Amino acid sequence: MSLSEFSLIDDYIAISRTTRDDVSLGIGDDCAVVEVPPGKSLAVSMDTLVVGRHFIEGVNRVSLGHKALAVNLSDLAAMGAEPAWATLSLTIPEADTRWVQDFMQGFLALADRFGVQLVGGDTTRGPLSITVQIHGFVDPGQIMRRSSAHPGDLIYVTGSLGDAGLALRLQQAGSLDSAHHQQLLQRLDCPTPRITEGMQLASIATAAIDLSDGLIGDLGHIVQQSNCGATIELQRLPCSTAVKAAIAQSNEWSLPLSSGDDYELCFTIPADKQQQLQQLAATLDCPLTRIGVIEQQPGIRCVNAEGAVIDVESGYDHFT
Amino acid sequence: MSLSEFSLIDDYIAISRTTRDDVSLGIGDDCAVVEVPPGKSLAVSMDTLVVGRHFIEGVNRVSLGHKALAVNLSDLAAMGAEPAWATLSLTIPEADTRWVQDFMQGFLALADRFGVQLVGGDTTRGPLSITVQIHGFVDPGQIMRRSSAHPGDLIYVTGSLGDAGLALRLQQAGSLDSAHHQQLLQRLDCPTPRITEGMQLASIATAAIDLSDGLIGDLGHIVQQSNCGATIELQRLPCSTAVKAAIAQSNEWSLPLSSGDDYELCFTIPADKQQQLQQLAATLDCPLTRIGVIEQQPGIRCVNAEGAVIDVESGYDHFT
Repeated sequence: MSLSEFSLIDDYIAISRTTRDDVSLGIGDDCAVVEVPPGKSLAVSMDTLVVGRHFIEGVNRVSLGHKALAVNLSDLAAMGAEPAWATLSLTIPEADTRWVQDFMQGFLALADRFGVQLVGGDTTRGPLSITVQIHGFVDPGQIMRRSSAHPGDLIYVTGSLGDAGLALRLQQAGSLDSAHHQQLLQRLDCPTPRITEGMQLASIATAAIDLSDGLIGDLGHIVQQSNCGATIELQRLPCSTAVKAAIAQSNEWSLPLSSGDDYELCFTIPADKQQQLQQLAATLDCPLTRIGVIEQQPGIRCVNAEGAVIDVESGYDHFT
Repeated sequence: MSLSEFSLIDDYIAISRTTRDDVSLGIGDDCAVVEVPPGKSLAVSMDTLVVGRHFIEGVNRVSLGHKALAVNLSDLAAMGAEPAWATLSLTIPEADTRWVQDFMQGFLALADRFGVQLVGGDTTRGPLSITVQIHGFVDPGQIMRRSSAHPGDLIYVTGSLGDAGLALRLQQAGSLDSAHHQQLLQRLDCPTPRITEGMQLASIATAAIDLSDGLIGDLGHIVQQSNCGATIELQRLPCSTAVKAAIAQSNEWSLPLSSGDDYELCFTIPADKQQQLQQLAATLDCPLTRIGVIEQQPGIRCVNAEGAVIDVESGYDHFT
């Protein structure tokens, strides 16, 4: 990798704390050289965040560093992978050391939490943009593909849905009170990748995806790639008090159904694994909630408490 | 990885040709899943190209696709690695399918040439920017680090130096005639990563780097990380007729010494491996030229045909 004219990579090294035995050569050479454990497959995912598109100018820089890594870790979680290494390409308008320090503080704190070592990357001058690639290990027999759901499988989600969407909605309306809405804002700016949950679920789940674009859109990828459909029971959707209040007020379900950025996992299990899942759930900090069932009929249907199919504005043309 | 609103990833798949047995899961899921051969280490490198910084607006799009992958492959070459997989993050101002097709034509043609499969990535709307991560295999005992050169080692380069710099100089002066200077322009726009050479050299060379920033700057990384210095014999520098003419005209050596973008390899070998290297050189299409020697004294000295040290404007403060 080319050392940039900024030589900011030196700063990364200075504040990096996690060092892994499986990194033979880290930052500072043409390549990083790393070792995958025998018998493990390597899972990789790359995501880019661009200013004005994925975050606003003037966003909290520590949070941005956290989120840039979190959205990638979330992809690993959806694959049930154990995180290992990250690479980072940072394009910034000017060599602002303070900016980079703040950003790296958020990035590396999350990296440390999940034992991830930053092994390489690139810094460039240009419009603000961040690309991260994450690397992790999976058991070859336990890959949670999007294409492996079957009719009869039960659909679950981790955590709660719609908090990030509500925070964004309040922010855009100028009515976000960072003291009063601290928890909501935290969900938008500092999502928790469900790594522990994903790794535990890999032996039970048939399919999984992380919720970056909203439940209907992302579950849509599962049913599409699995050649099936799904019914969701609206009253089962796990929502915070704030999101429940917003639903009651607006009388529509777009927050838990189609707002993005929650970074929860949506996964499917065979019906006969329900008890095993309950045992697992008891060991996790994060709730697992059954929200529906996979069916043969294509498309996604939402039913209310009385079992009537509700016409839901999902915001995603291809699934309405 | 999140499918973008553009759904351009589908286009990648459509024109991708290389499929590898060691890819368990390619584009279209949360992660790609790949298999590293037993006994091999994994070498990874990430580089970003930004419009206005690494290439000009309106650049040939096929060439840009080629170059985006080539600069990454060149990092693998400097590590002596065998290429395997790439990921690509493409940020473009608008969903211009023709643009992407052209870009991917150049990218995938080079990928095919070196057996590289595109396994994932991201497409985003934003200012034009390209990030590629390349992955390859190395023998754990044959890693050509920048830090492994020793006093007495001989310094070599592959190919020729200064062509890309001359093309850029002519282009900036508005005097590049694309018919007359076709070969020079090819060197700037479509560099050939020295993959074959790097893989062959790994068993002989002590240290290596690819020449992206210019010989003095890049050899500077080797001597700095190896705690030594070097002397370069100017009359040995391998240059094309066009570059030789430019040197004679300007009476200065900046083209082969400090212009970038050649993507040749600079490497060091123990003096007693010279014969072995000559045997290897006979099997390669690309010339290997001895240009100097590693010494204990820090810094890089350039000497002329008479052995006198020449004060060379390297363009790199930290090595003048």
